[in-house]
Amino acid sequence: MISVASTGDSASLFPMNTLGKIGEHAAIQRLTANLGAHADLRVAPGDDCAVTALPGGGLDQVFTTDPVIEGVHFLPSEKPERIGNKAAGRVLSDLAAMGAQPQWLLVNIVAAPDQDMQVLEGIYDGLVAAGARFGATVIGGDLARGPCLELHVFGTGTVPAGKALLRSGARSGESILVTGPLGCSIAGRHLDFVPRVAEGIFLRESGWVGAMMDISDGLATDLRHILAQSRVGAVLDASRIPTVGTLENALYDGEDFELLFTMAPEQVETLQTEWTERFGTDLFEIGRVVDTAGALELRQADGSTELLKGKAFEHFIDREPPPPR
Amino acid sequence: MISVASTGDSASLFPMNTLGKIGEHAAIQRLTANLGAHADLRVAPGDDCAVTALPGGGLDQVFTTDPVIEGVHFLPSEKPERIGNKAAGRVLSDLAAMGAQPQWLLVNIVAAPDQDMQVLEGIYDGLVAAGARFGATVIGGDLARGPCLELHVFGTGTVPAGKALLRSGARSGESILVTGPLGCSIAGRHLDFVPRVAEGIFLRESGWVGAMMDISDGLATDLRHILAQSRVGAVLDASRIPTVGTLENALYDGEDFELLFTMAPEQVETLQTEWTERFGTDLFEIGRVVDTAGALELRQADGSTELLKGKAFEHFIDREPPPPR
Repeated sequence: MISVASTGDSASLFPMNTLGKIGEHAAIQRLTANLGAHADLRVAPGDDCAVTALPGGGLDQVFTTDPVIEGVHFLPSEKPERIGNKAAGRVLSDLAAMGAQPQWLLVNIVAAPDQDMQVLEGIYDGLVAAGARFGATVIGGDLARGPCLELHVFGTGTVPAGKALLRSGARSGESILVTGPLGCSIAGRHLDFVPRVAEGIFLRESGWVGAMMDISDGLATDLRHILAQSRVGAVLDASRIPTVGTLENALYDGEDFELLFTMAPEQVETLQTEWTERFGTDLFEIGRVVDTAGALELRQADGSTELLKGKAFEHFIDREPPPPR
Repeated sequence: MISVASTGDSASLFPMNTLGKIGEHAAIQRLTANLGAHADLRVAPGDDCAVTALPGGGLDQVFTTDPVIEGVHFLPSEKPERIGNKAAGRVLSDLAAMGAQPQWLLVNIVAAPDQDMQVLEGIYDGLVAAGARFGATVIGGDLARGPCLELHVFGTGTVPAGKALLRSGARSGESILVTGPLGCSIAGRHLDFVPRVAEGIFLRESGWVGAMMDISDGLATDLRHILAQSRVGAVLDASRIPTVGTLENALYDGEDFELLFTMAPEQVETLQTEWTERFGTDLFEIGRVVDTAGALELRQADGSTELLKGKAFEHFIDREPPPPR
């Protein structure tokens, strides 16, 4: 979400069949299309985490990885502890999106030889502290030489067997909810956010949730993943989407790391009451799941609706440089 | 091991407290010095893998990560399948060094927007094939934008509870063995090596091994890790070290990905016979574990000995550029 500089006209610079042409999500789909199956693999790539069966049958184990790269996910001038918090937080948020209990973290660091060790120690401090807050212990990693500072965090968690909350579980008629205001995370929240781990476990234990994921690429983009994998559509109420900035910010900025989920509408009020008692924050009902597979509509206060187009942050598809801040 | 360009005089370019001054291993030690403990963590950072207890008590789970970076671990012109083979192979070799059965792999890819998708698909093919050969399934990963091509592979494996082979298990009087010739891996073997997974499991099941690890940084450097963690010394017989090039190559080149282990001398001959029957390769007895903690001696054919100094590949300590090829 941060300062991804445009490299010009992608049509003329890049031949077909480059990442810049295809974009991140299509590329991941192509790369992971022919992975092998395995009897213990419950959920293959395409959700927030992969889900595997642990021996004994009582628990599943979930796995995820997230990169955090200088100039893409943080600025070089950033406070080290905040970089570490974000690197661990992205992984913890993926685990939260499954309703999982975080377990182990491993960290690959890439850095240049002139990298200040104190900065790395600060990053590690932030990372270890963020993990410890949610029961995740850093147990390994590696360090290698490269052109800029990067962190690659790998994380595991556990969840009762068969109970991980998936993107594919949404059903027509369910309400769509989000755990906090969206948009403008660039102002600081993208580094300081607190992953919704306790909330994810609570939602999983409630037994009321259809589909769930965390919002990293923006509400409009991420909801579309739920719609595609659940083969349903959605109508969002513009007036009910909690925003930090404009509606546009809420729909497309991303890096909110709030949970987005669906549930039966008749239980929403009960859940909202319990939620506020337990977590001291609000839970926002922002729309409804409908039958029309893949369609994402936005309903304005006057009752008019428009189809939302795809317009998300994509790592590899070039765009205008962001406005100066 | 490949083309790590020198950036000049490290003393004048880098202030104290940079990675270039401290070096990779000391930096990792500093960063991981204060990680939290956990009741289920059997082996903390410092071995080839971290070892954790799985629920049920019958199995332990091992975890490792390895980066493979363009210009450091491979050249941009390299065949994609070989890059993928190396990226998976490094992780599989770490798992082999614990005597573990490989299980799951996840892959973070960093690439520039003009990255050719076919190259990535070739890398993925090599990676998936290398994993499948040893029972490891790729179950996830991520893709992000960065200045050069990198792969970060995360892997898990399983081993009967308490049976992982560690660097800390060497005892004075044991023989030191290696599973294949060492040195000159730069000529191609560093990309095409076959990780010693079956051999590692066989050695663990034999019950005869004291300490084990894989050779990634060179025999002299890696043996030193066993000596430090086992608080013993070693005498290597120069004439018995199997070399592809010179003795110097065998001691310091690295990226051999052979297993290095210790065992009681009276069982060596039996093991060698079984080994050759089973694997069709030779097993080389190259020295002896001794009492003098930390000392690594090399004995020449004439009986003279010299103390070996540390002189390994270090990612962040600058050196002369490699000779042109």
